[in-house]
Amino acid sequence: MPFTAPVSEFQFLLGHVVGFPELAKTDRFADATTDTVDAILTEAGRLSDQVMAPLQRNGDLTPAVLENGAVRTSPGFADGYKAIAEGGWVGISADPEFGGMGLPLTLATAVNDMMSAACLSLQLNPLLSQGQIEALEKHGDDAMKALYLPKLTSGVWTGTMNLTEPQAGTDVGALKTRAVDNGDGTFAITGQKIFISWADHDMADNVCHMVLARLPDAPAGTKGISLFMVPKLLPNDDGSLGQDNGIRVVSLEHKMGLHGSPTAVLEFDGATGWMVGAPNTGMAAMFTMMNNARLGVGVQGIGAAEGAYQHALSYALERQQGRTPTGKPAIADHADVRRMLLGMKADIFAARSIALSCAVAIDMAQAGQGDDWAARAALLTPIAKAFGTDVGIEVSSTGVQVHGGMGFIEETGATQYSRDVRVTAIYEGTNGIQAMDLVGRKLSDGGEAAERLIHEVQDDVEKARTALPDLARAVWEAAENLREATEWMLTCSDMNDRFAGAVPYLRAFARVLGAHFHLKAALAADAKGPRLAVARFYIERLLPEHTGLLAHAGVGAKGLYAIDLEDL
Amino acid sequence: MPFTAPVSEFQFLLGHVVGFPELAKTDRFADATTDTVDAILTEAGRLSDQVMAPLQRNGDLTPAVLENGAVRTSPGFADGYKAIAEGGWVGISADPEFGGMGLPLTLATAVNDMMSAACLSLQLNPLLSQGQIEALEKHGDDAMKALYLPKLTSGVWTGTMNLTEPQAGTDVGALKTRAVDNGDGTFAITGQKIFISWADHDMADNVCHMVLARLPDAPAGTKGISLFMVPKLLPNDDGSLGQDNGIRVVSLEHKMGLHGSPTAVLEFDGATGWMVGAPNTGMAAMFTMMNNARLGVGVQGIGAAEGAYQHALSYALERQQGRTPTGKPAIADHADVRRMLLGMKADIFAARSIALSCAVAIDMAQAGQGDDWAARAALLTPIAKAFGTDVGIEVSSTGVQVHGGMGFIEETGATQYSRDVRVTAIYEGTNGIQAMDLVGRKLSDGGEAAERLIHEVQDDVEKARTALPDLARAVWEAAENLREATEWMLTCSDMNDRFAGAVPYLRAFARVLGAHFHLKAALAADAKGPRLAVARFYIERLLPEHTGLLAHAGVGAKGLYAIDLEDL
Repeated sequence: MPFTAPVSEFQFLLGHVVGFPELAKTDRFADATTDTVDAILTEAGRLSDQVMAPLQRNGDLTPAVLENGAVRTSPGFADGYKAIAEGGWVGISADPEFGGMGLPLTLATAVNDMMSAACLSLQLNPLLSQGQIEALEKHGDDAMKALYLPKLTSGVWTGTMNLTEPQAGTDVGALKTRAVDNGDGTFAITGQKIFISWADHDMADNVCHMVLARLPDAPAGTKGISLFMVPKLLPNDDGSLGQDNGIRVVSLEHKMGLHGSPTAVLEFDGATGWMVGAPNTGMAAMFTMMNNARLGVGVQGIGAAEGAYQHALSYALERQQGRTPTGKPAIADHADVRRMLLGMKADIFAARSIALSCAVAIDMAQAGQGDDWAARAALLTPIAKAFGTDVGIEVSSTGVQVHGGMGFIEETGATQYSRDVRVTAIYEGTNGIQAMDLVGRKLSDGGEAAERLIHEVQDDVEKARTALPDLARAVWEAAENLREATEWMLTCSDMNDRFAGAVPYLRAFARVLGAHFHLKAALAADAKGPRLAVARFYIERLLPEHTGLLAHAGVGAKGLYAIDLEDL
Repeated sequence: MPFTAPVSEFQFLLGHVVGFPELAKTDRFADATTDTVDAILTEAGRLSDQVMAPLQRNGDLTPAVLENGAVRTSPGFADGYKAIAEGGWVGISADPEFGGMGLPLTLATAVNDMMSAACLSLQLNPLLSQGQIEALEKHGDDAMKALYLPKLTSGVWTGTMNLTEPQAGTDVGALKTRAVDNGDGTFAITGQKIFISWADHDMADNVCHMVLARLPDAPAGTKGISLFMVPKLLPNDDGSLGQDNGIRVVSLEHKMGLHGSPTAVLEFDGATGWMVGAPNTGMAAMFTMMNNARLGVGVQGIGAAEGAYQHALSYALERQQGRTPTGKPAIADHADVRRMLLGMKADIFAARSIALSCAVAIDMAQAGQGDDWAARAALLTPIAKAFGTDVGIEVSSTGVQVHGGMGFIEETGATQYSRDVRVTAIYEGTNGIQAMDLVGRKLSDGGEAAERLIHEVQDDVEKARTALPDLARAVWEAAENLREATEWMLTCSDMNDRFAGAVPYLRAFARVLGAHFHLKAALAADAKGPRLAVARFYIERLLPEHTGLLAHAGVGAKGLYAIDLEDL
């Protein structure tokens, strides 16, 4: 697919919208100068355009296959992966002590966005490694770090996450995989894991599985889960590779999309593993890792939306049908097509700003700028994940629609974005789970973090009162409505009343945040024209959606149970 | 797929919600007694459950293929089609003079809904024949009727529509296929048509193509288009089949879904055709046919939604994850899953009621009950088409989501509903075109038909004031908001201002109509419990969406053009 990485869009967002300059002033991220940021974005953009985008269709047309127990990847993927690894892109925000660039996660987020747009199925591989690197940095012991981190950071080895079992999906606590102490510092891991992305492949020397399992004497549920590192090939202490660990790739799934990314059933039959962190603390370790992985998946949605948008725009600028009001021949000038294109563009901007601001909050916390940043990051993570992936699904479906009849034909390539991105609303915690996390755990501070954010939105809006009074008023009122809905959530003594409205509440929250960022962008833009047009589109036409969503969010659970299951 | 046709749902809708009893009182449809209706629904339901539903996966897994110039259909499709044809289901509402049952289109609509839910790709075949039968009944001459109608009605032959060419999609007027008078009452048809559903197959003796083409001296654009009947095999006067007409099936498309339904490129190279209707009136003839076909496609969306709903519900009642608030083990009792399931059910009801009420209006007009019914039908058709297919897409996507990780796996069958139904928002006029039809042509009566309908909604709401005051108030206010938005549309001197808000306006219109029908159902239901619960869900949680949509609808076109194409 022809694709142009939106490098200048990221430069604008980082520079003027999501608060990156503050981050670059911290000691921790003093290296993230404007020059460095520009160089990173430009290089990553070039890799996305020139190396990854040409692989997008390969993944779909020639899926990864299982042959003689090993996975053969799609044509060109191994070379593409090599370019990613050798460019150092796996370790953008990894610890320099082990070969990482030590740059902000915000920058990694921008790079992941561009790479997702170019080739989602391939990008998932380094994204998984990034999660594993983070987990090891935080929970691995020194020997483990010394052995694994350089390999993962350089991309010579890759990482996976092994949580799900047939009976244990959302309910991770129901998992049964066993870990028995071998008495020599290792554990024998036995069990079956499903839905393991990039569980095996021919692109790197080793695959490192992070596996959740249960010690024999472990308590039931999530409190009895430990985390283990279980590599495909057993490494020697010097990092060279020893014998096969006997992990069997049972089968690959036939999925709706993301065919370039193999999804496997893995069988562990006494495989050798090393415990990561303390016994029975696996869920906590996994959660650290999952939080940023959730942001990463949100960004996959946004990237897919960007790819679908560019693809549809290019068609709309070429295709001629009927007379447009402007007299220009392309269908892009029909009002309804402009509505679709502007809607796509405006939603991508909103979701991207939310994701980047979430990353900034994570980085600010990491840079020791105070606990408020950690709370901000925790609050924004489920919103970034769910809204980013919903936008991915909606924008890619609109992309199909822009193509008309051609959209439904596989050769056009529009459906691939739509099929590939569908899983992002499901994996790393379904979007329903994200929403429940938002109204449950993330409001468990009495709504402090949410109130601080809403307050900040309204403060920012005040700055726009003079230049853009009508837009400022609309955003301010929307923020006020969000505050009231949040206060209602906090009055619910039964958590199920919050859960009943969690999904619409999350979306309304995202709508308001998106409006806030659009307004900031319109104010900040040098050439106000295009930014203002998109901001105005969003605030006048999409933001009003929040009132219906908040009405839905505030009804409570009772009515959901006013019908018996047999009457459904 | 296990599937149970919702026969009693249709009995309830026809009996209490969409005004079928009035229709059954007309002379024209005196045969449509309750007993007949029940027998038809029960028999069609049985065919859907037992014959068609088992074919659903076959179409996806073993698509129709082109072999030696002819299409071989998916396993079991020929037998399934035979059962449809021999049951008389192609001709439910066709003229009894030529073998049809002469029953209301409303009944055919209910049957099409059930069959679409069971196996969408197979159901498309008789749907196309039904459109062709209607076109011939209205525009064919006596000889043509006598020759073709009995064959099409009995299903011995099937019909197709040939409109699209590579350069002529939405802009049908750009078509180039030529028709040259042979001087013997026939025409030589030459050109290439694309996206021809069921263009060829091995399920019936002949395929009758209705082809739009241009006479040599025809005016440019849509005013120069004529309609021709161009059969695959040339029939003798006695209906026996003669020689091959030389229509070449060039290729089949690789589509996102609906693999059981072959979509072909057809090449006509001097094929013999017979003109249907007068020269240069092809568009008008095609439009008669397309209007009901649009309703039929809307119903495809609703049927697919029904299939996806049953499929997801069955999973949600089986699957166990985590502790539900009620203590029952199935995930169906989690609040967010109930939100999804009730949302699916409520939207299916809304879309189905709209489609059936559109069919009732068509039938009432047909039964000579006045022009108001024809205007009502014309108004409701684009709403039924666009909202029905949008509901199909949304509900089937929610169905995937209910399945969690399993939803993305093809073997589960959830994605097929989602992939199959996607095209329904595109073919028979994209949903954007439907919306433009609604705010343009369908409001060109000065909004009379719309106002009459809104008035009727509010009248009905008054009847619910005592029993369900809060719901009645909400629906009344929504209708009032719709009236205001409609009046705004009518004040727009520039049609493009209407077009800019057409899609959200159509959806808001559907939201209000759906609320009206839910309210009627809640009032009418014997056992008020379940109906009321679903109505309350819809009115409290989904109807509020209309305010945001109407805000969007009323902004106008100017802002859409405030950005240059190169800045998109």
